[in-house]
Amino acid sequence: MATSLGDLAAAFGFELAGDPGKTVTRIANLRGATSDAISFLANPALRDELQSTQAGAVIVASCDADICPVDALIADDPYLAYARVAAALHPEPDYLPGVHDSAVIDSSAEFADTAHIAANAVVAAGSRIGEHVVVGAGSYVGPRCSIGDRSRLIANVTLVQDATLGKRNVIHPGAVIGAQGFGNAMGPDGWVRIPQIGGVRLGDDVEIGANTTIDRGAIDDTVIGNGVRLDNLIQIAHNVRIGDHTAMAAMTGISGSTVIGKRCRFAGQSGTFGHIRICDDAIIGAAAVISKDVREPGLYSGYLPAEPDKGWKRKAAWFRRIDKLARRVSQLEKSDKP
Amino acid sequence: MATSLGDLAAAFGFELAGDPGKTVTRIANLRGATSDAISFLANPALRDELQSTQAGAVIVASCDADICPVDALIADDPYLAYARVAAALHPEPDYLPGVHDSAVIDSSAEFADTAHIAANAVVAAGSRIGEHVVVGAGSYVGPRCSIGDRSRLIANVTLVQDATLGKRNVIHPGAVIGAQGFGNAMGPDGWVRIPQIGGVRLGDDVEIGANTTIDRGAIDDTVIGNGVRLDNLIQIAHNVRIGDHTAMAAMTGISGSTVIGKRCRFAGQSGTFGHIRICDDAIIGAAAVISKDVREPGLYSGYLPAEPDKGWKRKAAWFRRIDKLARRVSQLEKSDKP
Amino acid sequence: MATSLGDLAAAFGFELAGDPGKTVTRIANLRGATSDAISFLANPALRDELQSTQAGAVIVASCDADICPVDALIADDPYLAYARVAAALHPEPDYLPGVHDSAVIDSSAEFADTAHIAANAVVAAGSRIGEHVVVGAGSYVGPRCSIGDRSRLIANVTLVQDATLGKRNVIHPGAVIGAQGFGNAMGPDGWVRIPQIGGVRLGDDVEIGANTTIDRGAIDDTVIGNGVRLDNLIQIAHNVRIGDHTAMAAMTGISGSTVIGKRCRFAGQSGTFGHIRICDDAIIGAAAVISKDVREPGLYSGYLPAEPDKGWKRKAAWFRRIDKLARRVSQLEKSDKP
Repeated sequence: MATSLGDLAAAFGFELAGDPGKTVTRIANLRGATSDAISFLANPALRDELQSTQAGAVIVASCDADICPVDALIADDPYLAYARVAAALHPEPDYLPGVHDSAVIDSSAEFADTAHIAANAVVAAGSRIGEHVVVGAGSYVGPRCSIGDRSRLIANVTLVQDATLGKRNVIHPGAVIGAQGFGNAMGPDGWVRIPQIGGVRLGDDVEIGANTTIDRGAIDDTVIGNGVRLDNLIQIAHNVRIGDHTAMAAMTGISGSTVIGKRCRFAGQSGTFGHIRICDDAIIGAAAVISKDVREPGLYSGYLPAEPDKGWKRKAAWFRRIDKLARRVSQLEKSDKP
Repeated sequence: MATSLGDLAAAFGFELAGDPGKTVTRIANLRGATSDAISFLANPALRDELQSTQAGAVIVASCDADICPVDALIADDPYLAYARVAAALHPEPDYLPGVHDSAVIDSSAEFADTAHIAANAVVAAGSRIGEHVVVGAGSYVGPRCSIGDRSRLIANVTLVQDATLGKRNVIHPGAVIGAQGFGNAMGPDGWVRIPQIGGVRLGDDVEIGANTTIDRGAIDDTVIGNGVRLDNLIQIAHNVRIGDHTAMAAMTGISGSTVIGKRCRFAGQSGTFGHIRICDDAIIGAAAVISKDVREPGLYSGYLPAEPDKGWKRKAAWFRRIDKLARRVSQLEKSDKP
Repeated sequence: MATSLGDLAAAFGFELAGDPGKTVTRIANLRGATSDAISFLANPALRDELQSTQAGAVIVASCDADICPVDALIADDPYLAYARVAAALHPEPDYLPGVHDSAVIDSSAEFADTAHIAANAVVAAGSRIGEHVVVGAGSYVGPRCSIGDRSRLIANVTLVQDATLGKRNVIHPGAVIGAQGFGNAMGPDGWVRIPQIGGVRLGDDVEIGANTTIDRGAIDDTVIGNGVRLDNLIQIAHNVRIGDHTAMAAMTGISGSTVIGKRCRFAGQSGTFGHIRICDDAIIGAAAVISKDVREPGLYSGYLPAEPDKGWKRKAAWFRRIDKLARRVSQLEKSDKP
């Protein structure tokens, strides 16, 4: 969508150093940009690329405005500004209201006239679908689900049952929300399944990645706060509660009944084990294992970086004898005493 | 479903301390319960909540009967009793027999009259679907699959091919059973795929979590025993064999041809690597890496808990020099000798 | 498919020690084989099984030809030979050209007459489907996707948008290709989604496992080279580039913008964190965490093997004090000096 630099500056409160009438039509990287594109400099390591860019304009911080060889939009946070400009130039596709002939909707389900229900979608009994909602192709909306206004299930999404989504959610393909939690009691003849009678509640502006799973609660609900961002292939077990604006990278696993604060961040392949509590503003590093409560904000780490095999093997072997090594040190300390 | 305490006591062999005619209609937590609900005390840490509960009745162990302020059902294992009472009060939904108009069933497939085949399900050639089976919306039952009586594919499940399911299985959405195993031989021009001609066999009373994958065997079958419980996002590679009543928490990965005993338990994000054998009754801890055979029952552990970043970094740095530290200890021991 | 040993020898350049007219109809393991089957010996540990096999013939290396009790096909690489013979005896199923009545294809999509578009598949606007392509049941091909000749989406596959697949790809069920990458900028009111305007490009002869996710790029494309093999439940983040013939086992996670060379191999549950570069021919071990560039080929390792809990706990406790242990060694060294 062609937009003038002047309009972008006005819309988002940027300072413009250049021609307000110049139009740009797309976002591009500094290196690949042509004169119809606007780029951005958020990473100081790319200053060299800024100086040779062919972009029509660049979003920069004020400290970089002087070295920008083309028109500049000056923003406090160029990365955030990039997000906003990209959304303006590359808007979400429009979905026409209506129900595809091949969709199957239970007669007891309610849906807004403005909703878009795509090919081969299925909506089960007792569900409610809000204004401008998109139920993408092949998606399944199970019994007693509710989808808030302007939320979108991209395609092949599964809301199993008793899932309540707020407004403006985006649920990516393969996500499964509201599956039965993993609740079993051992009986004399094997595992006895525990009915999972709770639901799942997602706040507003939540985004759930591809093939991520969020189980419904055992008795009470599983709860995901407003503005939460979950990447792909994440597991959220039953009765987890996640605070507003917390973000998790791919392959994170959260154990049942864990309570996570607001604005936390989890790097990839991290996990919690046990019924953990994590305070607001905690940052969990890559592959970190959290097995007790986190009470202070800040960064928590927990991986040993891989090494060439020979060196790693030597160190792993010493780890297996670390208790013996410690005993040898104690022995030396004893004999060291006069 | 409203049920009297007397009926519950009789059905499951509990002792009743209270009014046999009192009815309860749902399970609730001790704290959230109202007089129409029955709760349970399985975790001694919640005794305080027992004493202030508003539940109509509580399932307790005999040692807690005295402090129960309301009617009590006394059971040897209150958690197992909770599972049974919850199932009585919250029964699975009924599915009406029949095939939805939008389902597509190959003319060579066989299915029982009592089966429920939901909207947009697809059943391929040569498949057999037993009595009271549910093939949920959007599910795909590929060639030569067989589903035993009363098994349920919740929705959007994929049985790829040559998958044989026993009775009373529950397969959650997004699960993929019978995909081609990861078999490749390196040839002069790149990887050559190895046809995977085995199948997958699941016993009776198996439960498979959302987005879990179980590959079919390379030559022989992949085999999952009776009563096995797999949580979400688990990988079972080709030719794995899992013994009866083994349970795995989310994100566990089992490498090809691994043989796992009966009644094992795997915590989340654990994994086996190589063609491993694991004996009966082994318990694999969270994030543990099993790379050699497990020959004795009991708990195996393998993670280092995350810490605040500064402390972790210091320790990780010492780990990288642990071989040098050990050499220094050896040096000291030498000079310590008279 | 019945084939004579003479024909197999001629087709693949094997030496035959035995009857060229003998026919075999299937691949079997040495132990389970009957006289209609051909087996193979690729693992020297199975020589005992060779000597008692009931197979009609066995593929062996020349060094094992003498001890083969039945007809032998002698090959330089018996495992690769097994792959080729298995493909000859167990060919892929044929798919008849045509579009199933229940498939939904946008009028602006193009597809070859030889393509097979199965039940309940959906093909969106602007997509192109090549010769002999299979779009399996329940699969979704989103806007502006392109599928090269003879590629197959097995069933319930999702190509979200802007995904370009080369020739002869195989995409297993539940895979999601082209979902929006995880791009968010923190604004004053929470996360602001960054539109992901790049696509995904897969080369020829690529295979993508069940429930694996490959995100589309933020600005430029995510790129998967020719002959790449990805197992199940793998995460490939936005703007990753993977070189030709690289293979990854299940549950591997690759962080955004990581660039991986040719012929690399990743064992299960490994991961990269950060914008990493990995050179050609690197081998990443099981559960290894790669957090800086890999510049030399060879094996990189990074896990501590699980142990019985008691021993592990002791060692983990020493790890938590490893810095203190090191200080004690320094102290001893000081006092050791004359």
